[in-house]
Amino acid sequence: MGELVFVGLGLYDEKDISLRGLEEIKQAGTVFAELYTSLMAGLSIQKLEKLVGKKISIVSRRVLEEEGGQAILQEAEKKKVALLVPGDPLIATTHVDLRIRAEKLGIKTHVIHGASIISAAIGLSGLQNYKYGRSVTIPFPEEGFTSETPYKVIRENKKMGLHTLCFLDIKAEEEKCMTVRDGLEALLATEKRKRNRVITSDTLVIGIARAGSRKSTVKAGYVGDVIKHNFGAPPHTLVFPSKLHFMEAEALITLAGALEQIRKRQK
Amino acid sequence: MGELVFVGLGLYDEKDISLRGLEEIKQAGTVFAELYTSLMAGLSIQKLEKLVGKKISIVSRRVLEEEGGQAILQEAEKKKVALLVPGDPLIATTHVDLRIRAEKLGIKTHVIHGASIISAAIGLSGLQNYKYGRSVTIPFPEEGFTSETPYKVIRENKKMGLHTLCFLDIKAEEEKCMTVRDGLEALLATEKRKRNRVITSDTLVIGIARAGSRKSTVKAGYVGDVIKHNFGAPPHTLVFPSKLHFMEAEALITLAGALEQIRKRQK
Repeated sequence: MGELVFVGLGLYDEKDISLRGLEEIKQAGTVFAELYTSLMAGLSIQKLEKLVGKKISIVSRRVLEEEGGQAILQEAEKKKVALLVPGDPLIATTHVDLRIRAEKLGIKTHVIHGASIISAAIGLSGLQNYKYGRSVTIPFPEEGFTSETPYKVIRENKKMGLHTLCFLDIKAEEEKCMTVRDGLEALLATEKRKRNRVITSDTLVIGIARAGSRKSTVKAGYVGDVIKHNFGAPPHTLVFPSKLHFMEAEALITLAGALEQIRKRQK
Repeated sequence: MGELVFVGLGLYDEKDISLRGLEEIKQAGTVFAELYTSLMAGLSIQKLEKLVGKKISIVSRRVLEEEGGQAILQEAEKKKVALLVPGDPLIATTHVDLRIRAEKLGIKTHVIHGASIISAAIGLSGLQNYKYGRSVTIPFPEEGFTSETPYKVIRENKKMGLHTLCFLDIKAEEEKCMTVRDGLEALLATEKRKRNRVITSDTLVIGIARAGSRKSTVKAGYVGDVIKHNFGAPPHTLVFPSKLHFMEAEALITLAGALEQIRKRQK
């Protein structure tokens, strides 16, 4: 009569877990953590272990993606198992896949939600939630190839008057995190080929760094300026605003240091 | 030298707050809570007061929206003030507005994120995050008038192969929460007028109830069946899937009780 509980750890460090999440971990017989789908820059597993009073086993991408999480499922067939994950669980496809496998084996599953970069970035941007179109991840260029998908998504959203949330690629195993600068450079490289004037040096953009930490940074401005801004340590996120409402422009100026002149972009 | 800290309470009850949020409240001189922008069905203010060891003053919509949060800002000019809000702060425009007012008065602001229905519903749906288009709120019909916006948004998203997350209206002061059934009836009423076959009895839909609680419910199926399903107490949320990937169909069948025949909708 086992059980598998997915516990969201939230955004930044071990203090972002909810009281409910903590309670579930304390009741679990075995505790695993997966830390490669997002970067929790302030997280210390030692501090988290001390907090929950239990040993936490880190599972690799290989265990989850190549072996289908067998090590976790075998434990969860016998007892209550907690799998700790960054952010809100089930946003990463690999967690949904594991949940399906568990339920098919007759293992009950349950989800404890955590703060996610999805809503955090929307909130920190100051832009209205219902004006966001589909989101997209900007991947690291591979062997000189830059994906055109992010460029296309931003373009399509803008045509419809919608904002775009861009997640930036993470290669946890190589300790590589894409920065605001990397992301903008990838988009400018695509612009150079496509020439649709979607991302130019005077395109308005918002850079967000370390959402959820006491030292988070949000900076809005033109690409030419934001690309030179020092955002500090990762993780970083980008938002491309479409036409702004009065209140949205006000938020970018007051809360994110944008210039007064962005008001001319108001609807 | 005051400060205003927005603390997200998360989804369901007082245990959904993060350790970081709890710490901030304990340090605050005055604690306010706003509970009308979302419904936290399991929340007891008495239990929360006991947890934080402080008196919590509830602020009404009038205080925030008509009076611009003056009562909160006056306190925050003098000391550290925590404003507790459901979900993740700053998703509600009224919080962004208050944050701008505070910063203009020279009051430092800070945000403690919480779990939001935005990422929770995406995760619980089992559908892929990057395939969601813009989201929409289905409002209660007013004086017989049903807004056509939700219908249009679902239609446009479907044309682009994108899923739609529909928040359901809440009138906290009247203790009215729109249910899955209410939401589907409003959309079917629009369908009756527009006749674009966007929402019919055999349209695939996912109903989500009480996200974040131990007794959450997720049920996927055709509108004609889901409208008759007993989802229990609010809050409820709707998701309209577009074309499904193999894994998405698998998730709806295994995790949300959809019929095998939905596989025919796969890409």
